[in-house]
Amino acid sequence: MSVEFLGDWRRTHYSSVVTPDLDGVEVTVFGWIQDIRDHGNIIFLTLSDKEGLIQITGTRRNTPPEVMEKMKSLSRQSAIGVKGVVSARVEAPRGVEVIPREIKVLGLASHPLPLDPTGRVHAEIDVRLDARILDLRRPEPRAIFKVRHKVVSAIREYLDEQGFIEVHTPKIIATAAEGGAALFPVDYFNSRAYLAQSPELYKEELITVFEKVYEIGTYFRAEESHTRRHLNEFISVDVEEAFVDYGDVMKLQEDLLAYVLRKLSDECMDQLNILKVNLPKIVLPLKRYKYSEIVDQLNKNGYRLEWGEDLSTSAYRVLGKIHRNEFYFIIDWPTETRPFYVKPKGDSSQTCEAFDLMYEWLEITSGGSRVDRKEQMVERLRKQGLDPANFEFHLKTYDYGMPPHAGWGLGLDRLLMALLRIGNIREVVLFPRDRFRLTP
Amino acid sequence: MSVEFLGDWRRTHYSSVVTPDLDGVEVTVFGWIQDIRDHGNIIFLTLSDKEGLIQITGTRRNTPPEVMEKMKSLSRQSAIGVKGVVSARVEAPRGVEVIPREIKVLGLASHPLPLDPTGRVHAEIDVRLDARILDLRRPEPRAIFKVRHKVVSAIREYLDEQGFIEVHTPKIIATAAEGGAALFPVDYFNSRAYLAQSPELYKEELITVFEKVYEIGTYFRAEESHTRRHLNEFISVDVEEAFVDYGDVMKLQEDLLAYVLRKLSDECMDQLNILKVNLPKIVLPLKRYKYSEIVDQLNKNGYRLEWGEDLSTSAYRVLGKIHRNEFYFIIDWPTETRPFYVKPKGDSSQTCEAFDLMYEWLEITSGGSRVDRKEQMVERLRKQGLDPANFEFHLKTYDYGMPPHAGWGLGLDRLLMALLRIGNIREVVLFPRDRFRLTP
Repeated sequence: MSVEFLGDWRRTHYSSVVTPDLDGVEVTVFGWIQDIRDHGNIIFLTLSDKEGLIQITGTRRNTPPEVMEKMKSLSRQSAIGVKGVVSARVEAPRGVEVIPREIKVLGLASHPLPLDPTGRVHAEIDVRLDARILDLRRPEPRAIFKVRHKVVSAIREYLDEQGFIEVHTPKIIATAAEGGAALFPVDYFNSRAYLAQSPELYKEELITVFEKVYEIGTYFRAEESHTRRHLNEFISVDVEEAFVDYGDVMKLQEDLLAYVLRKLSDECMDQLNILKVNLPKIVLPLKRYKYSEIVDQLNKNGYRLEWGEDLSTSAYRVLGKIHRNEFYFIIDWPTETRPFYVKPKGDSSQTCEAFDLMYEWLEITSGGSRVDRKEQMVERLRKQGLDPANFEFHLKTYDYGMPPHAGWGLGLDRLLMALLRIGNIREVVLFPRDRFRLTP
Repeated sequence: MSVEFLGDWRRTHYSSVVTPDLDGVEVTVFGWIQDIRDHGNIIFLTLSDKEGLIQITGTRRNTPPEVMEKMKSLSRQSAIGVKGVVSARVEAPRGVEVIPREIKVLGLASHPLPLDPTGRVHAEIDVRLDARILDLRRPEPRAIFKVRHKVVSAIREYLDEQGFIEVHTPKIIATAAEGGAALFPVDYFNSRAYLAQSPELYKEELITVFEKVYEIGTYFRAEESHTRRHLNEFISVDVEEAFVDYGDVMKLQEDLLAYVLRKLSDECMDQLNILKVNLPKIVLPLKRYKYSEIVDQLNKNGYRLEWGEDLSTSAYRVLGKIHRNEFYFIIDWPTETRPFYVKPKGDSSQTCEAFDLMYEWLEITSGGSRVDRKEQMVERLRKQGLDPANFEFHLKTYDYGMPPHAGWGLGLDRLLMALLRIGNIREVVLFPRDRFRLTP
């Protein structure tokens, strides 16, 4: 079978708009063959396009013989175009079918395929990721990425509405300034540079110009840990605002979450049904647990933790059991557990104005009030073993009038995991990058 | 002078909403001191916030003496909060001023500043970029980045409306597959990886799942050339669509351009006035000049070019003079001048279904129909000296039913240059990256 040219064929209808009231109308549809059932005098071909499925029904009586021949010999997942007439028929799926007059073969699939994109045969995640494009044609991944698109656009809508401006900060940076965290080195002409792990310092500087900024961008973390909730390349939603503190941006975070949930329940019910998930329910304001209360909760539940220690994965797992189906904040962390730019509390420098937004055991967002005085910044850098000289450009901006400010970074991939109750971050990323996977 | 805590102060009004009809109302405003004029019994302080300027007027009669003292001793560009009462007064700028009752110093500026953010003193681009945060407080850069935000959101609005889905593809890739172009190497754990210079192959693959995809992301090009229109890190708007050809996506491109222009003229007149620019005017459809016509135009204008040669910077400069104030397409390029994934024309493989959207001498967008047959792809790769083995994952997707498709990549920074008639790309990027600049 040979492939044909598109020529002057153009789509007139997507599957979703081919409804029984178009009975008798000629349409042109495009898509991928999901299934073919050949009953001799009648052939049913299910065509899949970005909006759903449509049945193409060839019959010996109504369909030209060469079209019947073509239908028989096509391979599943081939891309085709179909010109035909809509027929309302109660027995057909969705009460409608297309009687083909002409079929164009636009891209042939070669069998055997590495996996079955109808999803009838289970495949392990690595097999699926190796043939990711075919895997994505299953209904569930398609639904996940439509939801993801909606989440991102809802976030932008909300932040734009609140007067935030979207910015683009550099992803290649000169120094591994933030120390502790592992950065990927880049050969930048004749010097060594690094991939940014967050827009933190840039966004803090930019609030002295635009007051309310956000960025949705790709960041990189060279951590070796290989888990179900970490990737080495990820999308972060970063927000920063002037003249506010962490309480204000926590409110912004929870209002945004409520907005996203509302948008999804208004506009993504089809996708949520395919994924068989009910959205998490939230009541605002979300609970705010102090770190010290979390320590108590853990100790009461048999997990020993001393005040001042950071939470380990196993501590988070216990928390997840205590806070089932719950979005909540953990606030007022020990200063030592947080990066140098988080502001210690006025009354006690032992704790700082930091928060995490959690869903069960998963950290979604980290944020806080920021250090806004140069001397305190220099002191904090030194305490964390960092050299203030490496922060020359950033420290200079403190001489230009640095007001109080606060912000947060939200892991977009993590948020998707929480909203859709998905256990592995690789399910919500098109082409995930981890220590062992750089392809496809 | 010491800095105070924010405490319970919260902004009640931005400068733009402090209008004469608020006469007598108490407001809290925040911002940076633009100017102070001390006339003894009366002190005028101009406060700048993200929305504009507001005059704070301290008088010996109405303002507490300690507030008057504070006003006198503050340095320009310091961040402050002002609680006071609005007074409608025709002599004041915009007919309104705030009589301060209390002032909080929230971030002090240390003088001398490296440049004057009121823009009264001219500074060279490198001086400005070294103190970029201060430079951005000038009215013009603020206006540029507000327009940029609006352009990006208009692009998303339009593409979402047309049924496109936004995707995120990897920025770290395993092989320097596309050969010719210079890629930045990354140390990826124990192997060598590269920074993506475009989402080209990923977006082409993804149209077999979602049919219409776009991505607005950061890409990297390790080219050594140091010009006013190239950066090594840039934002690209990439679009790809199934079952269409280059004519369809050119139409999409020009309709999108018209939409963006309309949005800007509806919503950014203030910014355009600050920048003293009139938006370019376009009439659809834009002119489509064949490459062969462009060769003729150049030769007629004294620039010698043989059919088949790519256009040099000096050729583009001549074109810019021929096509003043014009957005136009150059189509049907010699196949040899284009990447392996651009589809040769059916009738003659010498030319291909490629186009560029130009503004005067500036290339804004490159696009085309794509090679959609595996054998032709392998042949094109070999002809360009590339090894098909390096494209294993991409070629495999041709076995899953690859339909005809087309798309383009638009340089966001270039588009801003064209819309705002700005000669240096560094003006439209917050923190530009070039061969010699990795900071701030």
